[in-house]
Parts: sequence; structure tokens; C-alpha cells
Amino acid sequence: MTEQTTQEHLQTVNESLESGTTMQIRYLLNGALPAQDVARLLESSPPKERKLLWDLIDDKNEGEVLQYLSEDISAQFMKTMDTERLVAVSEQFEHDDLTNILQHLPETLVKEVLASMTAQNRARVETLLSYSEDSAGGLMNTDTITIRPNITVDIVFRFLRRHQELPDMTDNLLIVSRSDKFLGTLPLTKLLVADTSSTVREIMETETTTITSDMPASEVAQLFEKLDLVSAPVIDPETKKLLGRITIDDVVDVIRDEAEHSMLSMAGLEDDEDTFAPILKTTRRRAVWLGVNLVTAFIASYVIGLFQDTLDQIVALAILMPIVASMGGIAGSQVLTLVIRGIALNQIGATNTGWLLNREIVVGALNGILWATVIAAMTALWFDNLQIAYIIAAAIIINLLFAAITGTMLPVILKKLGVDPALAGSVILTTVTDVVGFLSFLGLATLFLV
Amino acid sequence: MTEQTTQEHLQTVNESLESGTTMQIRYLLNGALPAQDVARLLESSPPKERKLLWDLIDDKNEGEVLQYLSEDISAQFMKTMDTERLVAVSEQFEHDDLTNILQHLPETLVKEVLASMTAQNRARVETLLSYSEDSAGGLMNTDTITIRPNITVDIVFRFLRRHQELPDMTDNLLIVSRSDKFLGTLPLTKLLVADTSSTVREIMETETTTITSDMPASEVAQLFEKLDLVSAPVIDPETKKLLGRITIDDVVDVIRDEAEHSMLSMAGLEDDEDTFAPILKTTRRRAVWLGVNLVTAFIASYVIGLFQDTLDQIVALAILMPIVASMGGIAGSQVLTLVIRGIALNQIGATNTGWLLNREIVVGALNGILWATVIAAMTALWFDNLQIAYIIAAAIIINLLFAAITGTMLPVILKKLGVDPALAGSVILTTVTDVVGFLSFLGLATLFLV
Repeated sequence: MTEQTTQEHLQTVNESLESGTTMQIRYLLNGALPAQDVARLLESSPPKERKLLWDLIDDKNEGEVLQYLSEDISAQFMKTMDTERLVAVSEQFEHDDLTNILQHLPETLVKEVLASMTAQNRARVETLLSYSEDSAGGLMNTDTITIRPNITVDIVFRFLRRHQELPDMTDNLLIVSRSDKFLGTLPLTKLLVADTSSTVREIMETETTTITSDMPASEVAQLFEKLDLVSAPVIDPETKKLLGRITIDDVVDVIRDEAEHSMLSMAGLEDDEDTFAPILKTTRRRAVWLGVNLVTAFIASYVIGLFQDTLDQIVALAILMPIVASMGGIAGSQVLTLVIRGIALNQIGATNTGWLLNREIVVGALNGILWATVIAAMTALWFDNLQIAYIIAAAIIINLLFAAITGTMLPVILKKLGVDPALAGSVILTTVTDVVGFLSFLGLATLFLV
Repeated sequence: MTEQTTQEHLQTVNESLESGTTMQIRYLLNGALPAQDVARLLESSPPKERKLLWDLIDDKNEGEVLQYLSEDISAQFMKTMDTERLVAVSEQFEHDDLTNILQHLPETLVKEVLASMTAQNRARVETLLSYSEDSAGGLMNTDTITIRPNITVDIVFRFLRRHQELPDMTDNLLIVSRSDKFLGTLPLTKLLVADTSSTVREIMETETTTITSDMPASEVAQLFEKLDLVSAPVIDPETKKLLGRITIDDVVDVIRDEAEHSMLSMAGLEDDEDTFAPILKTTRRRAVWLGVNLVTAFIASYVIGLFQDTLDQIVALAILMPIVASMGGIAGSQVLTLVIRGIALNQIGATNTGWLLNREIVVGALNGILWATVIAAMTALWFDNLQIAYIIAAAIIINLLFAAITGTMLPVILKKLGVDPALAGSVILTTVTDVVGFLSFLGLATLFLV
């Protein structure tokens, strides 16, 4: 549960595995720990132990644990099940969670699971499967409690009491017409203080934010954050019929994924990256990113190579040139990170990009002048050469200006082109700051010193 | 509300500002747009426009807008108010929000605000102020609805109906003893289906997760995510008395901040970074980070300088050396990012660091061999020199191994030392991969080629 306890459980599990006794682990995995903690334990284990632990979980508990695992890992385990187990486990999922996992399974398994369901459930899941995972339709569930507008509060209470229990996170009753058109909501907090003789129509809220099934998940998340929602109805964009509802727990996942996405993408990692992925999978994924960056590195080397003769004459240039490239890279990635976040938060658009670019150029110039002075002074002292000091100062200022412009405009342009700025931004930025850094420093040196 | 509309509003505002007519803006800011959208508009505006827009908001609407602004920006506006306005505005805040903002205001203003409150409210806010902002106490609010265990469901209904309305996000009634000790919760979803003659004691849930006021905010967020909570009671760690409750909307802020924290820190940006901060503030903050990284750059240059004679003889080394440093930096920052996220998610601890380090070393070795071969082949072709090809291959493998070890262990060690891995990690890592890259490449060349 807390940091200590997850690590403590891992400790216990490791010790038991080493000593070969599985009794205590079985006890932990099958009841002593809540399913969420078991899922956390599996996610925090390397592949071999993960498999071992999974085998120690009783069949009847597997379904619940799967629901709390990341979809990637759930799907891995489910792929290895025979049809009967797969079907048994699927029955324990809520429809929206099941849909998400089915999207990670091979077509044949999906068909088997669907074939095993009742016609009604199959129809529901098939509808959910028809929505994109990144849309409101993909986030919603169908466990709504609906009432008609013309009944009284008293009857609502009686109607509710007929239920064994209400679905989790029910904070609103949803009001629909005879033809299932969405009319409004009745918050429980309002129902509970209402006069029992009023009708639903009199007290329901009609200015509710409704979400259409095609709204992108990121917009859904913004709405929930802005309006402090716990749940919200989802309607069909054309017929206005109620399709289901989205609850905050699923939205929190979207918010976390989105916030993590930029950081992981900037390092070329996948969103759902498994910290404990096996060696070959990890090697393959990392190799791609290293390859992309090698192209950048060779471009930089090519630029340096253009000035071979200059470098041959003045070795101090070779010693100092990484400083110019590195300062540009650092300055650029600060701007890039800020702008990528600003775009993700929808703060940046056509109206304020100009101001931002302008500010970044001024900031780049000011910091360029400041650090160019420092670097020039140190260079003059180190190499006892004023000319090189002037040249490195000029190169630093030039590179920081390019870094400011690239850092601001690159993500804006990439976004317009439909390319993920977090993924492509850092590679392109590094190429620019390396090339401009080496080109300006060695170029100026060639012009003035050789 | 959506991406389009925020940007559209900004467009309208900009056009009106340019044409000098403020009527339409006043209309937008004072009623046409919900306060949340006005706050978004302010946050997406450069300083001058932000000030202009703020001045166009009617006094009576200021309080609501302030609540939705980031604390940093709210505090800026509140600092400029006279005492009377400040007090008037403060009265509109919920106590937890007010507390957060007071923590950003100068002592004298805080005293004035507190002095203006009723004794009861002052006592409450002073209690909240005594908790750290990053603890459960700092997140909680005091708007709980409490009941006693011995009353019947019927009486609960009558008690609730005496309220005008229930606080937002009330999903549970909290049950306390005569001495205010927390006993359990009664979910509204359970209350609504309960037999009206049962007593609260019979149907209440006693195995509720309680949060003590000293629990760190990050643990609170984990609990909410794990248990899909909407609200949770906060109790005094010693007396077990009920102090208040935490709601999911405040927890969502914690989750977003935490997820953003790593990305922003890795680029040396502040958590609450204002995208549209003014030039001087931005320049100052960025300068610090550039200065820190300049030290790294000079260390790398110093290492290169050690091999001045070698570079003097073989200029190809100067051309190729950035490749070795850059590949190490990229490989290292992938590992670093993964481990920083793993630590933030509490997946990484003493039990699995060994496995992780081992995997990263193997992955580093495999990718090292792969890319060393590619780079060696290209070097051999480019410079027609097999010896340099061998040497760069060896240097790449060495640097990727160091990158793997540093990337894995550095954040673990920094965390143990109580230093934020996201902030210090990338600078130290770059220093290591630069130094090892230049040292191994130029060192091997000096040994074997000169």
C-alpha cells in the first residue's frame, strides 16, 4: 500500500522464492493482499518472478488481479490462457475494462470471448469495441442508473431501494426520455435534500455537460478537471441518446498517461513502458532510438569534418567545440519542454505563439550574452588567446538564439503536421543545436583565424 | 472549453484589445464564460494582456476566477489588492484553497486576512496552515457531513433533508463517536438502497481506508488511484479524531503535478512553471540551469584538453568524438527516465534494483556491440582507417556500459540521499557520459595510435 509495504512484500516474496517455500507467497497472493497490491507486486517484478507469482495465484483470483494490471501485462497473461479460462476470467471484468484488454488480444481470442457471452452483453461489448480507445466511447461504461422526469422523489427512493446496490461512483441519476434521449441529471446530493413530493423534472439539472462518444479522451480529461466531475453521461452525437457514463477513475488514468507521455516520449520510451520488460524486448526498442540518434550524431560529425583543416591548425577549437553544442542543447531543451507542456495544456495557439517566440529570443539573447561573456573569459584565461574567446562568444550567442527559435517553433510546427512533438522534438532539436553550434564556432574560426 | 474554444476566445480577446474596444471582453469575462475558462484565458496570456484582462474583471467575479488560477498567479494578483478587497475575496474561497494561497502570500497579508475572519473560521484555517502543503492535512477540507452510529436510516434521511445542499463530492457520510473519533463511513450508494429501519451501525463500513493528516500527498494520491476513491476521511494520527476529508479533485492536481514534475525537473524547470512568465524572471531561472550545465561542459572540455597532442596528430578523432559522447548520453537518459518513473511509481526498491542493473548492463552491452559495429564500419569507410574504427567501437561499448550503470544507479542513490533524481540526474549523467566518452575514445587512441 505505502512505499514501505510494497517493497516489504517484495522482500517477503523474494525470500520465500529463494528458500523454495511458496506457502507464504500463496497466502499473500490469494486473499491476504488486496488484488490491487497483488497487481502492483507483479508489475514490480522481473519477468521470471512475475511468471512464478502469476502461477501461484488461484484461478478464482486471477480475474480480479488482471483488472488492476497495466493492459499490456494483462494481455500477456491472457494470451497464454486456454479458451475456457479466458472466458471465465472475462466475465469478471467491467465492460469498459474488458474492451480495453480485448484491444490488446489477437483477433481469434477476441472472437472466442465474444462468442461465449450472452447476446445482450456481446452487443454491448461490440459497441464499446467500435469506439476508439482514445475517445469518450472507449472510456465509458454502461452501468448507468436512469429514471424518467415525471416521477416524484419519493418514487425515485423506492425505485433505488429495489437495487441490491448502486454502481460505484454513482453521484448522479441520469434522466432520459421514453426514447432514451438524455434530458439531464439528478445529483444524489440534491436528491437527498429534496422535498419527497417534488418531481424529478422540477429538481433535475439540465445544464449538464454532456460528452459525445466521439470526444477525444484528452478533452474528456480536461472537462473533468475543469468542472471537478466524478462522472459524466456520454451521448450519441447524432441521436442524443444516452450511451453510458464515464467515471473519474478512468479519467485519472488518462490524466496520468498524458502527463507521463511527454517525458517518456522525449526519451524515446513507450507510454505503457514495462519497467521490468525482458532483455531482448528492451534491447530492440532502445536500439531503434539509438539508431535515430546516431543519424543526428553523424550529421554533427559531418559538419565538424568540413572544418578538418581548421581543426588541424588550431587544436583548441576541438577542445572547446562541445561547449558550444552543449549549451545550445540545454537551452533548447528547456524551451522545447516548456512549449510541449504548454501545447499539452492547450495554452499555446496562434494568438500567443508570437509573444512566446519573441520572449524566448530575448531570453536567449540575454542568457547568450551572459554566458558568452563567462565562457569567453574562461577561454581567454585557458588558452591565452583573445581571438578564440571572441569567436566562442559569438558562437554561443548564435546557438542560443537558434535554440530559442527551434525550441519554440519546432513543437508548434510538428503539432500542425500531426507529428508528436514530444517524440520527434528532442531529436530534431539536438540536430539543430549541434549543427549550428559546430558550424558557427568552426565557421567563424575558419573565417577569422586561418 | 475545448481546444478550439480557448484559442477562439483568445482570438476574440486579442482582436478586441487591438481595436481598443473592451466591451466584448468585459462581457466574456464577467458572466459569458464560466470562471474556469476565464482562469484558463488568463493563464494562456502574456503578462501585459494578463494584467489588462484582470483589470476588466468586475470585483465581484474576481474571487471565483482566483480559485481556478494556478496558486502562483493567484498570489501575484492578490498581493496587489488592498486589505479590504483581499478580505472580501478570501471569503469566497474554500478553506483548503485559501490555505494553499495564503502559503504564497507575505506574512503581513496573511495576518490581515486571518484577522478579518470569524474566530471559528480563523481557527480552522490556522489548523490547516499548520500542515505541510505536501501532506494529507494540506490537501483536506473541513466540509464533512458527520452522523452518529446509533441513529436509523430514516433519521439520516430526515437529517440530510435539513441541509440546503450537501457539499460537492459527498459520496460518503462519516460516522463519528460522541468524542469525534472516526468510526466508519456510510456510502450514499449504500444509504439509498438500505432498509429505512436499520441503524447506521448495522450498515456502515468500518474497514475504510483512513488517511492520517501527516501522510505525504503522494501516498494519498496512490491510495486514491488504487482504491478508486472519490473522497476519504482524514484523521489525527494520535487521537484518531476526524479532522476533515480529501476529495478527488484535489488529488487529481497532485497526480498531474507529480507526473509533470519529472519532465519539468529534468529540463531544470519549476513544477508550477508559468508558460507566459515575463522575460526577466524567465532569464534568471534559465541562467541558473545553463550555469550548472556549463560546469559539465567545461569538465568535458578539460578531459579533451588532456589529449591535446593526440588530437593535434589525428584530426579524425576530433571529428568523431562527439558521436561517442552523444550515443552514451542518449542511452543513459533512456535508462535514467525509465528508472525515475519507476521510482515515482514505487516499483523500484532494494529487491529489484539488482535485476534492473543487470538487465540494463546486458541491454547496454548488446546495443553497444550492435551500434559499435555500425559506427566502426562507417568510420572505416569514411576515414579509410581500421585502427580508428576499432577504437571507436571499443569506446562506444565502454560508454554504453557506463551509461547503463549510471542511468540505473544514479537515481536510486540520489533518492537515498534525499536529492531529487529528476533534477540532479540528467546533469550528472551527462557529465559521466561525456567524460567517459571522451576519455575512452581519446585515451585508447593515445595508447594505440600515437
